[in-house]
Amino acid sequence: MTGPDPAVAAVRVAVRRTLAALPPGEMVLAACSGGADSLALAGALAFEAPRSGRPAGAVTVDHGLQDGSGARADKVVRTLADLGLDPAGSVAVTVGTEGGPENAARDARYEALDTVATRLRASAVLLGHTRDDQAETVLLGLARGSGARSLAGMPPSFARAQVRYERPVLGLDRATTRRACLAMGLEPWDDPHNDDPAYTRVRVRHEALPALEKSLGPGVAEALARTARLLRDDADALDAIAAQALAGATRDDGLDVTALAALPRAVRTRVLRTAAVEAGSPPGTLAAVHVDEVDRLVTAWRGQRHVDLPGGLRAFRRCERLQFGPAEAMPHARRHHK
Amino acid sequence: MTGPDPAVAAVRVAVRRTLAALPPGEMVLAACSGGADSLALAGALAFEAPRSGRPAGAVTVDHGLQDGSGARADKVVRTLADLGLDPAGSVAVTVGTEGGPENAARDARYEALDTVATRLRASAVLLGHTRDDQAETVLLGLARGSGARSLAGMPPSFARAQVRYERPVLGLDRATTRRACLAMGLEPWDDPHNDDPAYTRVRVRHEALPALEKSLGPGVAEALARTARLLRDDADALDAIAAQALAGATRDDGLDVTALAALPRAVRTRVLRTAAVEAGSPPGTLAAVHVDEVDRLVTAWRGQRHVDLPGGLRAFRRCERLQFGPAEAMPHARRHHK
Repeated sequence: MTGPDPAVAAVRVAVRRTLAALPPGEMVLAACSGGADSLALAGALAFEAPRSGRPAGAVTVDHGLQDGSGARADKVVRTLADLGLDPAGSVAVTVGTEGGPENAARDARYEALDTVATRLRASAVLLGHTRDDQAETVLLGLARGSGARSLAGMPPSFARAQVRYERPVLGLDRATTRRACLAMGLEPWDDPHNDDPAYTRVRVRHEALPALEKSLGPGVAEALARTARLLRDDADALDAIAAQALAGATRDDGLDVTALAALPRAVRTRVLRTAAVEAGSPPGTLAAVHVDEVDRLVTAWRGQRHVDLPGGLRAFRRCERLQFGPAEAMPHARRHHK
Repeated sequence: MTGPDPAVAAVRVAVRRTLAALPPGEMVLAACSGGADSLALAGALAFEAPRSGRPAGAVTVDHGLQDGSGARADKVVRTLADLGLDPAGSVAVTVGTEGGPENAARDARYEALDTVATRLRASAVLLGHTRDDQAETVLLGLARGSGARSLAGMPPSFARAQVRYERPVLGLDRATTRRACLAMGLEPWDDPHNDDPAYTRVRVRHEALPALEKSLGPGVAEALARTARLLRDDADALDAIAAQALAGATRDDGLDVTALAALPRAVRTRVLRTAAVEAGSPPGTLAAVHVDEVDRLVTAWRGQRHVDLPGGLRAFRRCERLQFGPAEAMPHARRHHK
C-alpha cells in the first residue's frame, strides 16, 4: 500500500497544522468557490477533521454575477456533500458597487461567511488562498507604494465579526492544489473571471509575475511570499512600538516635541499618523506626504504656522508641543516663538 | 529671457539641495560614466558649484572591459573639462571576477573613486543614480526575498573609506536626465552593456518593469522608489531597536530567554541574527531559516539540544539562557531541564 499523492499529502498536512491550533471538538468550515485551491482545501478538511475529532462543513457563496451561477453553486454543494462535509450549503449574496467590483464581491462574500459561521458556531472558516495569491497581493500592494503594511500581503490568520479565518494553504502553490484535486478525483471549476484582463489581479497573474520570473529567475512567487511574512512582522513590531511611543509622548496639552524628535523616523511617522487619525483625519485619505509635512513641524521647524490635513484638521506646533485641532478653530494670535 | 529648460532646472535644483548640506568651500566631485544620468549631473554641478562658492571636479572610470574604452574615457574627460570641471580626469581600473561581473566592476569603480576623492580632499562624490535605477534595485532585492533591508534600495547618501557619496538625482527619472543633456547640448554615451540581456538588471529594466507598468498602471517606478525610502526607514529603526534590545538581554552567561521572548518577532529575529554574526557565523550564509530555528529555541523550546549554524557555530539553550559556541566544543553531559 502506498501513501497518498504528495500534493494531497501536502494539503492535508497544511490543514492538519491549522486544525491543531483550533479548539478541539468544534465545527470547522471550509469556504469553497469550486476552484482548485478551495476544493483541494475542502477535500483535505473532509479527510482531516474526523481524524481530529471535529465536525466539518463547507459553504459556497453564490455572487449572482454570472448566468447560471445558482446551478454552479448547487454543483459545488453536491461535491462538498459527497466529500462528507456536513452541512454543505450555498449562500446567495447581492454584490454592491462600493470600492469597485472586486472589493464589493469580497465584502459581500465575507459578510455571508461571517453570518454562516456565527449561526453554525464554527471555531474557524478556512480559506483557500495560496502562495501564488499571496505573491499577487504583494505586487498589488507594491503599486500603492505605501510601505511595509501594503507589502505584507494576506495574513495567515485573522478575525472579523468575531469569526476566525485561517489560510492553511498560504504556503503551497497553485500547482499543488490543482494536482491534489486531480489525485482526489475532484474536478475544479475555472472561473472565467480569473482570465479576464479587465481585473488588475488577472493581469498581475498572467503578465507581471511571468515577466518577473523571466527576468529574475524562478522562485519569485516564493520570494514575494517570504517578503510578505517578514514585512508583516516588521509592520506589527513598528506599530506596537509606535503605540508605546505615542503613549509616552502624550502630555495634557499635546505631544512632547522633544520625545518625538528622539524617535527613529519610521516610528515617529507612525506615531504622527496615528495621532492625526485619532484626532479625526480619515485614514484612507491621510497620505505619506501629509505625515511628512507634520514631521517637519517636529524635525525642521522654522516657525511654520500649521499643516492642513484631510478631514478639516490641522496640526500645529506651540513651542514644545505638537497639537491637532479643527482648521476653523485655529487661533491666529498668541503664537509663541522659541 | 526665459529660464532654463525644466529638465535642466530639475537636475540643478537637485544638485543645489545636495550642495547645501555639504561643508562650504570644499571640492565636490561628480562621478561620470558618460551616460545621460551622470552627464546631466556633471553639467548641473558645473553650473551650481561656482554659485555656491566651491571648486568642482569630475572623474570617469575606465573599466577596460570593452574595446576602445580608453578613447571613450578620453572623450568623456574632454566633455567634463569643457563644462568647466577642474580637475577632470579618468582612472583606469582592473576588474576582477569576485561576486560576478557587475559586482566586480562596481567594487573596482568605488575603490578608484575612494582614492581620487581622498587625494583631492573632496567633501563628496556625486553619483548619477536615478529613480529608475532605484526601482530596478528594489525589484532585484525582491528576488532575494530577504526582507526590508533588501528592498531598501540605494541610500541617497552613504560613506565608505571615509569618503562621502551622494545621489542627488535619486528622485528624478531617466527621461529627465536625458532631456537635460539634450537641452545642455551634451551628447550622452549609451553603454551597450545597458542593452545586454545577459545582465539581470537589463532584463528587469527592459522586461519586468514595463510588464509591471502594463499590469499595475503608470507610476510603478515611483511607487518602488517610495517603497525603498519607507522600508529603509523601517530597517534603520528596527536595527537600532534590536541593538538596544540585544544589549538589554545580554547577561554574563548568555542571552536572557525571557527578555528575548518579550520582544516583537521582527526585533527578536534581528537580535538573534546579530548575536549569531557576532559569535562568528558569516552574515552572507546565515539565512532566515537558521535564525528561525534559533528563534524556536526561545519561543518553542521542547528540549531541542542545539541548532547548527554556518561557520561551525551552534546555538544552544541552557535553562533561561541562549548561548552560542563552536560546534566541536559542545559539552554532551550537564544539560539541565526545566
